[in-house]
Amino acid sequence: MRSRNSSLFVVAAIACFAAAAHAADPLPSWNEGPIKQSIIAFVEKVTTEGGPDFVAENERIATFDNDGTLWVEQPMYTQLAFALDRVKALAPQHPEWKTTQPYKSVLDGDVQGLLAMGDKALLAIVAVTHAGMTSDDFEKIVTDWIATAEHPRFKRPYTECVYQPQLELLAYLRENGFKTFIVSGGGIEFMRPWTERTYGIPKPQVVGSSIVTEFQIKDGKPVLIRLPKVNFIDDHAGKPVGIGQHIGQRPILAFGNSAGDREMLEYTTGGDGPRLGLLVYHNDAEREYAYGPAGGLPDSKIGTFPEELMDEAEKKGWLVVRMKDDWKQVFPAE
Amino acid sequence: MRSRNSSLFVVAAIACFAAAAHAADPLPSWNEGPIKQSIIAFVEKVTTEGGPDFVAENERIATFDNDGTLWVEQPMYTQLAFALDRVKALAPQHPEWKTTQPYKSVLDGDVQGLLAMGDKALLAIVAVTHAGMTSDDFEKIVTDWIATAEHPRFKRPYTECVYQPQLELLAYLRENGFKTFIVSGGGIEFMRPWTERTYGIPKPQVVGSSIVTEFQIKDGKPVLIRLPKVNFIDDHAGKPVGIGQHIGQRPILAFGNSAGDREMLEYTTGGDGPRLGLLVYHNDAEREYAYGPAGGLPDSKIGTFPEELMDEAEKKGWLVVRMKDDWKQVFPAE
Repeated sequence: MRSRNSSLFVVAAIACFAAAAHAADPLPSWNEGPIKQSIIAFVEKVTTEGGPDFVAENERIATFDNDGTLWVEQPMYTQLAFALDRVKALAPQHPEWKTTQPYKSVLDGDVQGLLAMGDKALLAIVAVTHAGMTSDDFEKIVTDWIATAEHPRFKRPYTECVYQPQLELLAYLRENGFKTFIVSGGGIEFMRPWTERTYGIPKPQVVGSSIVTEFQIKDGKPVLIRLPKVNFIDDHAGKPVGIGQHIGQRPILAFGNSAGDREMLEYTTGGDGPRLGLLVYHNDAEREYAYGPAGGLPDSKIGTFPEELMDEAEKKGWLVVRMKDDWKQVFPAE
Repeated sequence: MRSRNSSLFVVAAIACFAAAAHAADPLPSWNEGPIKQSIIAFVEKVTTEGGPDFVAENERIATFDNDGTLWVEQPMYTQLAFALDRVKALAPQHPEWKTTQPYKSVLDGDVQGLLAMGDKALLAIVAVTHAGMTSDDFEKIVTDWIATAEHPRFKRPYTECVYQPQLELLAYLRENGFKTFIVSGGGIEFMRPWTERTYGIPKPQVVGSSIVTEFQIKDGKPVLIRLPKVNFIDDHAGKPVGIGQHIGQRPILAFGNSAGDREMLEYTTGGDGPRLGLLVYHNDAEREYAYGPAGGLPDSKIGTFPEELMDEAEKKGWLVVRMKDDWKQVFPAE
């Protein structure tokens, strides 16, 4: 009873607060301009009951890529930084790694050498760092790492290298009855330990790549064991498939930043009724990074944004959010 | 703005209603007794803030099997009835089916003959009835069928052959901050079109078996095509795996009714802290069916409830809900 009543008070308090907050700018870290106007106009039209573009609340599905869309992906994917740190942490138990590739490159700090070895080398790294333990143990490993690791340039935890304008957008969408999902090429179990605290996105609303897990009774305890075998790659054409599996509904809004998000935006905006596709364009070398056609890191294999994607965005009316121009502030205040 | 304010009023109204309703019996279709008491005691202890068994709201995950747990599964799984009806509906386009197995058995109404042909025959039926169309088209086919098909004995739509006590339990759990999921061996896309309306469980909270889907641009429209290939079987040890993939959290409550739910209950109740496992036991030939060790349909391949499961339930303290004894009413009033 106590919990019930107090949660009702909380609901009422949140409701009042939300009503008051709405009078203020819902997206204060977005610069005024056509992009911000278009986002707000979209949300207003799909939530206007009786209007021609009204969308029922249970159909208001918004999907966000993670790396480069919600948080920094340069100079390397955070999950890769995690994997390299894990190789270093595990190295004392594997003296042979000092002389065996691809581990040697990692221990020597030669990330370019590692990447040059291709997917097979990366899968070997994933196998030793992401498999061979229970899902519960992996969650603990990720939780401990993310609490202490820092971004090499910004010298703050990765979970504070998230984009303040996107935190505001996620909250604004949820206040307007949207269900917000992450649909990322990153590992689903790498993200889930921290997405609720960081983005307000609970574990079941995280879609990502995965390795195979197996149910076992281990030391008398029923657990899921992570096996060194790829289960699903949630990238490119895998993103709509992952959306179909996990959400079962075509989103009405999708936000990405690279070629890997193309099919998700096509699938989203290819449905009937009002739809919105958005892409972050990293052109802000000073506050974050500039890559893709914006130059700076023209040959970046991370967050590839080819000219064709820009052409398709223009043709289909997807909004290209230029970080330097459209975001007043990039990261949350310290 | 209009939509926002009206939804706030709705929130306030629901909150008041929920507070008033709580004074009344939350489970009126459950007979008084140790089972009902244990369920209510569990919900009260995990929601008592400051209590030793308090569970934070975002960890209150409850998973329910569907066939035989939330709705009738005899005399055959509803999805099988759907598949057989689809074979009949498609037969005019396939004159060769009149003389080709396993279609001939279906068209002759020989279900036992079909089942005797084994999994390969069933997969052939699944292939022609569940694959070869877009996910959107399949959703429409299921939606149309479920709106008109009737249970052969109860002469009412299948979505009204759901268990009233379970509808009350689902609502009671949600009122107490639980997130309710279906975790079924049935097809995920067969269930999603009607679970929200029927159980209040939205599409993303449905976990089930699936076939492979592929992203394609078809007639200029981006779609998911359903392929005649099994993707995932969400049964037995597959249930904890499906929970890991879709929910990413170990439930604190799981409800099943057969051997296929055993691992889900083991996984759920094998976690730390307060846990509750429950099983429906079909011993009510008069109002529904009696099968498993309760007899009546001793060799039922549907909803197998072996003696070992009963032994395990007793050993582990899982609650065995005897339909005849514990449910005052089985189906919703007409």
